[in-house]
Amino acid sequence: MDRKIKIAICGYGNLGKGVEKAIAKNPDMELRVIFTRRDPEEVAKQTDTPVVSIDEREEWIDEVDVVIMCGGSATDLPVQVPMFAGVFNTVDSFDTHADIPNYFANVDEKARTGETISIISVGWDPGMFSTNRLYADSILPGGKTYTFWGEGVSQGHSDAIRRIEGVKNAVQYTLPVSEAVERVRNGETPEFTTREKHRRECFVVAEENADQSKIAAEIKNMPKYFADYDTEVYFISEEELKSEHSGMPHGGSVIHIAETGEGNKQVVEYSLKLDSNPEFTGSILVAYARAAYRMWKDRQCGAKTVFDVAPAMLSSKTHEELLKMV
Amino acid sequence: MDRKIKIAICGYGNLGKGVEKAIAKNPDMELRVIFTRRDPEEVAKQTDTPVVSIDEREEWIDEVDVVIMCGGSATDLPVQVPMFAGVFNTVDSFDTHADIPNYFANVDEKARTGETISIISVGWDPGMFSTNRLYADSILPGGKTYTFWGEGVSQGHSDAIRRIEGVKNAVQYTLPVSEAVERVRNGETPEFTTREKHRRECFVVAEENADQSKIAAEIKNMPKYFADYDTEVYFISEEELKSEHSGMPHGGSVIHIAETGEGNKQVVEYSLKLDSNPEFTGSILVAYARAAYRMWKDRQCGAKTVFDVAPAMLSSKTHEELLKMV
Repeated sequence: MDRKIKIAICGYGNLGKGVEKAIAKNPDMELRVIFTRRDPEEVAKQTDTPVVSIDEREEWIDEVDVVIMCGGSATDLPVQVPMFAGVFNTVDSFDTHADIPNYFANVDEKARTGETISIISVGWDPGMFSTNRLYADSILPGGKTYTFWGEGVSQGHSDAIRRIEGVKNAVQYTLPVSEAVERVRNGETPEFTTREKHRRECFVVAEENADQSKIAAEIKNMPKYFADYDTEVYFISEEELKSEHSGMPHGGSVIHIAETGEGNKQVVEYSLKLDSNPEFTGSILVAYARAAYRMWKDRQCGAKTVFDVAPAMLSSKTHEELLKMV
Repeated sequence: MDRKIKIAICGYGNLGKGVEKAIAKNPDMELRVIFTRRDPEEVAKQTDTPVVSIDEREEWIDEVDVVIMCGGSATDLPVQVPMFAGVFNTVDSFDTHADIPNYFANVDEKARTGETISIISVGWDPGMFSTNRLYADSILPGGKTYTFWGEGVSQGHSDAIRRIEGVKNAVQYTLPVSEAVERVRNGETPEFTTREKHRRECFVVAEENADQSKIAAEIKNMPKYFADYDTEVYFISEEELKSEHSGMPHGGSVIHIAETGEGNKQVVEYSLKLDSNPEFTGSILVAYARAAYRMWKDRQCGAKTVFDVAPAMLSSKTHEELLKMV
């Protein structure tokens, strides 16, 4: 075997920890260093890997093949990835769909200048779901693609509930409407409203003297987040929230329906059922870090998306082993 | 738009006709010629495209970018693809899994010598199912992958029944055992026997004075084809066979189960439900013909599999359109 691929993690939250666990399952890779914006001493208590300040990153250039960027899409990645790109190869999970074209252009310029590779927007959506939407649309053009999310925890929606006065803690689940999924699976191609595709369940811990009916109404009427959905609100204790709702499950389906020939329906579906969203996303990032390293060794450079990565690039298997898997 | 990609079809059976219909759905491609081993006059009656003998293929070199090889895997493709490779770019659906490494080596040598591209074993299994097995195994190494086929018509098994004395006609369906699929979908990782994964249903038209119980016994005890499965045999009339069983539906699922972190189950599933197997396979071949042409224009050559083809290569969309789909 060639020498191991040397990985750095930037950002040691849920996703960074998921990446760390995934690297341990890939014998051709090793985790060399964790970059953090926090006090490195504090982070170091949680892991055996060296932890250093993000400001010292350039001292690690020769020690690292690919940096897996594990910050958030809202404020971390748009700042951090252009800082690393061009100096390091990077992989990230930037997931603000509407901003991807601009983000790509920014990162591409840095990476081309520095002759490095940056694979952006890797994960399951964007990521594996995008890839499956593209495969299905390329094979069966003119069809219709539906994406359903859940059952799973949405951090953004949980946070929005926590900001309401009188709320101590909250977890929000996004759920696909099962009748809608079944209709599409059976080859129908309806136009759905937002409400017809997904519903929301909120588990809320209220402050002792809070007005629960006022909180419930405030949640259900919140524009963008809840008003367009059928939303159920359940008030529970902090203990129940911790014991029953502290996991990070998620999942969903991409379903493509098309007709070929004289009215022959063809239904293609890709589905995920995940006990741990950050561990699954971390596992995807690690496979694409392998691809980033290989594409860089092949003298490619610039920003890339999952669409630019051939499946063989993701695998640790040899060419001979792959031929037996075809 | 650039000029259209010029396609030839070699072999005008069910698959060739499926390819012809798929090309009509892709405005960036045009069908220029059909090569046949049969009498071209006879084939020409079925289509508006020029039909010529396979022996005249070299006269069409300048008229064709990619030949989609639509013969059978048993005897046609192993002879025909090495004949075309190195002279034309080709795409084929060679599906004898065990022979793929040898077949790849044969075709690779021809294509490298002639500086052309040949993408082999394109379809849904091998093909899209292989790709999904590889993605899942690369992202979640150490997991377990299950493939279920059906409900669908197996030509090989139908043919085997038709060879039995006293049988006029027959259609065989392969069906996944639904309890097995459900167990895997729920994250279990059992070891199945052949019988536990799939079952078989046979619709048979018997000769007038044939011994039906003898035919049924002969089917159920046929080694390899039926003996290892729970097989049901139904005798029906030729009319019923024609009206109820003349379609070519198929489908199936690839399900990958793995654990990440401390016992978190992750379930990835890719499923197909197809009204027409040859039209779906034909649609896949057409998308990979687009990729073959582009990879050849990028000065790549040799044999390739679906694992070597980046998803973006399959799409007629521009780079800007693709960035919006990520």
